[in-house]
This record gives sequence, C-alpha cells and structure tokens, in this order.
Amino acid sequence: VISGLVDDLRSAVGADQVLVDADLRAGYEVDWTGRFRGRAAAVVRPGTTAEVAAVLRACAGHGAAVVPQGGNTGLVGGSVPLAGEVVLSLRRLGGLGEVDPLAGAVTVGAGATLAAVQAHVAPGGLAVGVDLSARDSATIGGMVATNAGGLAFVRHGPMRAQVAGLEAVLGDGRVLSHLGGLAKDNTGYDLVGLLCGSEGTLGVITAVRLRLVPLVGERTAALVGFADVGAAMGAVAGLRRAGVALEAAELMLEDGLAVVAEHLGVPSPVTAPAVLLLEWADPRSTEAVASLDGATAVAVADEPAPRARLWRHREAHTEAVNALGVPHKLDVTLPLTAVPRFVDEVRALVAEASPPSTCVLFGHAADGNLHVNVVGPPPEDDTMDDAVLRLVAERGGSISSEHGIGSAKRRWLHLSRSPTEVAAMRAIKEALDPVGVLNPNVLLP
Amino acid sequence: VISGLVDDLRSAVGADQVLVDADLRAGYEVDWTGRFRGRAAAVVRPGTTAEVAAVLRACAGHGAAVVPQGGNTGLVGGSVPLAGEVVLSLRRLGGLGEVDPLAGAVTVGAGATLAAVQAHVAPGGLAVGVDLSARDSATIGGMVATNAGGLAFVRHGPMRAQVAGLEAVLGDGRVLSHLGGLAKDNTGYDLVGLLCGSEGTLGVITAVRLRLVPLVGERTAALVGFADVGAAMGAVAGLRRAGVALEAAELMLEDGLAVVAEHLGVPSPVTAPAVLLLEWADPRSTEAVASLDGATAVAVADEPAPRARLWRHREAHTEAVNALGVPHKLDVTLPLTAVPRFVDEVRALVAEASPPSTCVLFGHAADGNLHVNVVGPPPEDDTMDDAVLRLVAERGGSISSEHGIGSAKRRWLHLSRSPTEVAAMRAIKEALDPVGVLNPNVLLP
Repeated sequence: VISGLVDDLRSAVGADQVLVDADLRAGYEVDWTGRFRGRAAAVVRPGTTAEVAAVLRACAGHGAAVVPQGGNTGLVGGSVPLAGEVVLSLRRLGGLGEVDPLAGAVTVGAGATLAAVQAHVAPGGLAVGVDLSARDSATIGGMVATNAGGLAFVRHGPMRAQVAGLEAVLGDGRVLSHLGGLAKDNTGYDLVGLLCGSEGTLGVITAVRLRLVPLVGERTAALVGFADVGAAMGAVAGLRRAGVALEAAELMLEDGLAVVAEHLGVPSPVTAPAVLLLEWADPRSTEAVASLDGATAVAVADEPAPRARLWRHREAHTEAVNALGVPHKLDVTLPLTAVPRFVDEVRALVAEASPPSTCVLFGHAADGNLHVNVVGPPPEDDTMDDAVLRLVAERGGSISSEHGIGSAKRRWLHLSRSPTEVAAMRAIKEALDPVGVLNPNVLLP
Repeated sequence: VISGLVDDLRSAVGADQVLVDADLRAGYEVDWTGRFRGRAAAVVRPGTTAEVAAVLRACAGHGAAVVPQGGNTGLVGGSVPLAGEVVLSLRRLGGLGEVDPLAGAVTVGAGATLAAVQAHVAPGGLAVGVDLSARDSATIGGMVATNAGGLAFVRHGPMRAQVAGLEAVLGDGRVLSHLGGLAKDNTGYDLVGLLCGSEGTLGVITAVRLRLVPLVGERTAALVGFADVGAAMGAVAGLRRAGVALEAAELMLEDGLAVVAEHLGVPSPVTAPAVLLLEWADPRSTEAVASLDGATAVAVADEPAPRARLWRHREAHTEAVNALGVPHKLDVTLPLTAVPRFVDEVRALVAEASPPSTCVLFGHAADGNLHVNVVGPPPEDDTMDDAVLRLVAERGGSISSEHGIGSAKRRWLHLSRSPTEVAAMRAIKEALDPVGVLNPNVLLP
C-alpha cells in the first residue's frame, strides 16, 4: 500500500469509513458470482459528494487507482479491485429526494438501490423504466455507470434513457453537476449520456435525476409458438410497427423449453420450434396478439398466478442450464435480420465442439439480445467463447448487449469497436482523467 | 485565402465542386433568416465520405477552419462562415438506404432532407420521430448535429433519441463509423450520442442510421381552457402519468390568443387564461381529455379540416407576432414547476421595459419549452434578451431548448453550464479535434 494514502483517506472520510482489515474488506473484494476476486489497497465509504471529491483528490495525489463500487452485482469484473486498487463504495449515498409529480422525476443518491427507489416512487403511480432481478442490491449509480438493460428494455430502453441528469466527481475531485433534469436542453455536449455506460472510467457518479415512467398494474402474458425463429422475429416486429406497447418479448427454442420442462417436471403449455413469451398492459393488444401471422399455438394468461406459470418456463432457463453443468454464458446482440441464421450457426459451432457440448439459447426478441449458454467445455477454457464472439462480430453484432465490458471482455472489445472508435474513447478518457485514477483496468484494452 | 488550399480542395473533390466565385458562394454564406452572414474561403461539396475525409485532411494540413453545412436552416448562426471558414456542404450525400422492416430502421446520407426520408419510409408505415416545419430543406445530418427538437418531441424525444448509429469524419480525416444500429450495444462510451448535438465541432456527420417510429394516421385535437398556467401544466402531467400518448401538448395564453384572433379575424374557439392544444392518436384517450381536472372549456376536432382550424390558432402565433414588429425571440426551457411563476415574472420584466414592449408567450407544455417573443426593443439591442436569459438561469432553466448554441448564444453558455462542464466540453473538443479544424467559432466560448 502506498505510504500515507490511508492516512489521507482517513482525513477525507473519517477513520471509521476506511476499511483496511482483511475481514472488513473481504465483501468488497469479490463479485457476487465469485468469479472475480482481488485485494483492495483500502475500502473507502464516503457519505457525501464532498467526501467522494476528497477521496479522489487524495488518490490522485498519490497516483492511486480507484474502483468505484455500487451494489457489486455486475457480471464482467468491473467493480472489484483486481489490481490492488482503492475500492470507493458509494452505498452510503442512498438519499431519496422528493418526487416531482409534474415532471415525473426524482433525484436519488448513487447508492440507493433500485428496490428502494421503486418503493419510493410507486405511491405516486410511477416506476423506474429499468427493472432487473438484482434490484435489492443493484444501486442506481452502478446501473447508470454500466448502462444496465434488464426486463423492460423493449418498453423503455436502457438506463441511459432514464437519466435526466446526474452529478459526478471527476478524477481530480472537481464536481460535474447537471441535475436540473430538463426535458429539453440543447446547450452543448451530452456529458450526462457520456458518463452513462462509462463504467467508472470518466467520473464517479454520486447522484442521479431519474425520468420515471407510469407504473403498470395489470398485464396479460402469452406463450406463442412459431414454425421457426424468423417467423417469431417477424411477429414481434409486426406488433411493434402496429404500435403495440410490449412490456416483454422473450424468445425461447424448442430444445431449451424441453430442458426446462425436464427440470421443472412440467411440460411447456406451447411446443413449437420457436416460442415467444409476450407481455402487454393495454387490453386492446390482446386481439393483435391472438391474430398474429404465423402463430401455431397460443396460451394466454391475465391473472397473476397463471401468468407466473407461463413466465416460469422462461425464468427457469437459467437454473435448468446450471443443472446441466457449469455453463459458459455469453450476452450478445445480433442485428434482427441476422438472428435466425446466427441461431443455426452457433448450434453448428457447438455441435462440432470437443468435448461434446450442449447449447441453450434464449433472449429478448425485440432487441436481438441472445443469451448463449454452452455446457461442456471446462470453465477456464474460453475457446468456445472466443469462437462465438467472433461469429457475433462477423454477423454485425455486439459482444456485450447489456453487461458492459468490465475487465472480462476487454480482450474482445476490438470485435465490436473499430481502432478509430477505441482511439476516440481513449482520447476522451485521457482528456477527462489525465492522471488515470478512475478504474484504469476496465473497458479500454 | 490560404495559399494552396483551394488547389488541395480541388484535388480532394474535383474542381467543379469547389466554389470560389462570389455569386456561387453567396447562398452558402448567409442563413435563411438573413441574420448571420459571412464570407467563405471556399465552398466545398464532396459527394462521398472519402471525399469528406480528403477535404478535412486538406484543411487540417493548412490549418484552415471548416464550417459543416446541411440545409442551413439553423437559427443560431452555427452553419455560416462568420470568420472566413471553408464551408463544407453535405447536401450531395443524400443517399437513402433500404428500409429494414424488422428493426424499423434505415441508413441515410447526412445530406438527405427530412422530407425525402419521410417520403422514403412512409410506404412501410414508418416515420421519423422528429418533425419540423423546415422539413423540405433541413438535412438529417444537420438535425443530428444540432439535436433538433420540433413538433413530436413530447411523443418521441429529440433527434438524439432517433439515432441508432452514425458515421462521421474526425478533424484529421479518420472515419468513425458506428452504423450497425443495434438496439442494445453496451461496449463503451456513447460516441454516437456525443456527436449528436455537438454542432459540427467534434466530427462531420456523413451518414445516419435512424430508428423509425410507426406512422400515425388519424388524430384528434382539442383546445382546452384552464383558469391558470399551473392548472394547464398539471393537466398535461396527469395525462402523461395516466399513460396517454400525446402527439402534441401546446400551451397558449389569453393575450397571445387575442393577438392571433385579431390577426386572423377569427375568434378563438376557447377563451381562458391558459389554453392547451392537445393532440393524440389513440381514440380511448378522448375520454381522458374530456374529463380533465380543471378544464373550463373544450373544443374537439377529429376530422382534418376542423383539426386544422384548431391548429391555426397555435400556428398563427408566429405570423401574428411578426405583424406587431420585429420580435426578439427566445427559445428556453424551464423546470415544469417553475413555468407558472416564470410566465408572471417575464411579463413583469417586459412591462417595466423602456420603450414599452409587448410580450407573447407560447410553448410546448410537456417539456417546459417556452417561446418568449418580445416586440418593442430595437432589433440590435439585446438588453431584454440578456435579462430574460438570466431569469431563465435563476429559475433552473436552459437558455437553449432546441436551437442549440451556435455563434449566437456562446456568450450566454455559462448561464446553463458550469465552469466544470464547460472545461469538460473543451477537454473533449481538444481530445477529438486537437488542430481545431471543426467549427471552432461555435458552441464553446
């Protein structure tokens, strides 16, 4: 540990909030999956934006690298100290501002969990436009820093689309504040959007102004079968073109549903080569779904319990795959037109693999986001991952649909970003963080 | 003119496409309002992205500044050569790609006009999410570079929200291309969003991948009266919270409507201190509008001709104001909660002015975007403009809602952006355009 650094951190936030003992640090040094583990120079827990600024000034003064950390629920090793960094935990910045009912907006601290914000705004008939299963731990700051996706993407887009403003501390301790949250503000570069998804490399987000969405109460869900993936993708596009506001549009395949049925001991209500799980809130949309072109079978549910039974066949994909062995999990996007061919190609690729492997595919049909799960290759062997990501790139896709790059996918960034794009990103990084204090070991190669 | 520059430009694009004669340059040297006028070193009209790159390499080599120009319909002097720059016209890059019906997207050249793209995508039941009255001249590249707003903002947001990808040439001639247009792509900084609204200072946009929206056919419009501005603002917020998809939500005031009625010789169908013009496509929303809290009078129209008669009272505001004299026009945003007080304050400010002045206010209620028109002060006297913009800033508003900064509003940028924000913008500008070739006389002070 750099001499004098811990003393300066104690001056910045108080001795109680600088954790140096191994047992106190432990929970901050490993991600929740256990895949990424390191050792922190120290864990610092500031309680205000001014303290965050003091921490960053101290670290910059010592040339010490910082890993900002929210709920530590990421999947790509972006928030753990893999190279001995200082962990800057934002969890104490959990304040919840008053909801503005006119604008449908609220300002919250970066450390507020998604669940806390959801509970805070629901009484006003409002919700956060992004929802994800880690809601009890994931913080708003972390979700903005990683531009989280999640279950409602088809309806409301990524986290970046929910952010009306933010406050962040730059690497030298200056506070960049743009919390006004105006709907229309055309006064120069979109610094707020730039910080969204920058994975803690450009600034430490301390507060966020969220643009909220109406809370949806009753919903209808349906499983709809199709003769092939192309027909299913076309059906989703047709519904969207007709203005149907889908709350979810999940794609599943016959073999994946069979693995799930076996695991649950419950047959799928709909069997077909490609199956969509659609959900919507507007009752008029039921007719549009019932008369979908190319549908071979439909099961509809509008009460909570039957609806949950339909969803079970989608949600149990993860646990059913895990029961087969330790999967290689890849989160990728394909252009919508390329999805049917990619599904065939990735299956062929896995079929040729040695040792023999099983491939379970599912995803979000409206966005072309596929989760590719391969069981068979040893966990530490990423030959298959590499082959699948290269195929994704050849087909014009993205190697990270919603998880980000972190430390895990840096070596593959060039597959989705050209040398000119990477150079532009690096130039921006060096312009805003010339000392290189902020998360220097993630995102950029 | 810099020696050798014109020869190098001729090598880059061919002699025919380098305009040096005064009469050929003239149309590129003045904006459509006639307010901003300069003299170009030359006007260059490249026909391909490679030619744009060659032009920028030539200019960078000579240290010659470049003003990118699309349809030249901007209102803030951002696309005219006020300091002897080279005008780089993008109008020849007007190509229209094939519409992707699955993704609801299309790639077009930066020089394609909005009207051309609208006509191209309409047969597939699709539309561009931003619409504006300059559609026959305004180019997609210019609209992206200035993050245009316009009539459909309440429904679909600004131009930045319509852009799924773009291609741009950096100041040194490198081509930054991100045209894949994936809905979900979490692989680093949002360079596409950063270029949107950068007003030609970071790169010259050459092509855009547009995310299209469903084309809306039949609509219903209503004029709805309220006892005050606060009640009108609350009504719009209530409709949005209830999930009503408004296509327009325009705010007008009793005195402005009286000026319009006098000008048209037609009384307003609704008279009240505050009047909303609402428009929607979903027939179910008619009931929600009819039962609005606080409405004192309602006039509804769902056929094209009566609907146009209602709109006439909103649209004629501009010409009615112009008939009173040469107006000072300010395009500002206020936080929604601040709008009622601001309306009173700005009227008081104008009432105290010498010479006696008239103030006509109207705007977009859902976004807090107000158009402040003041007739009375001489055109060249911007004392009133300065006072109004300072009041906007004091109330937490934005000095440019949708027009951008250009050269006209640079002196007021500090009212909406803090020193840290301006420093961050300048650092990004210097990182991406170190030579300072790209539109160096707009946006940043």
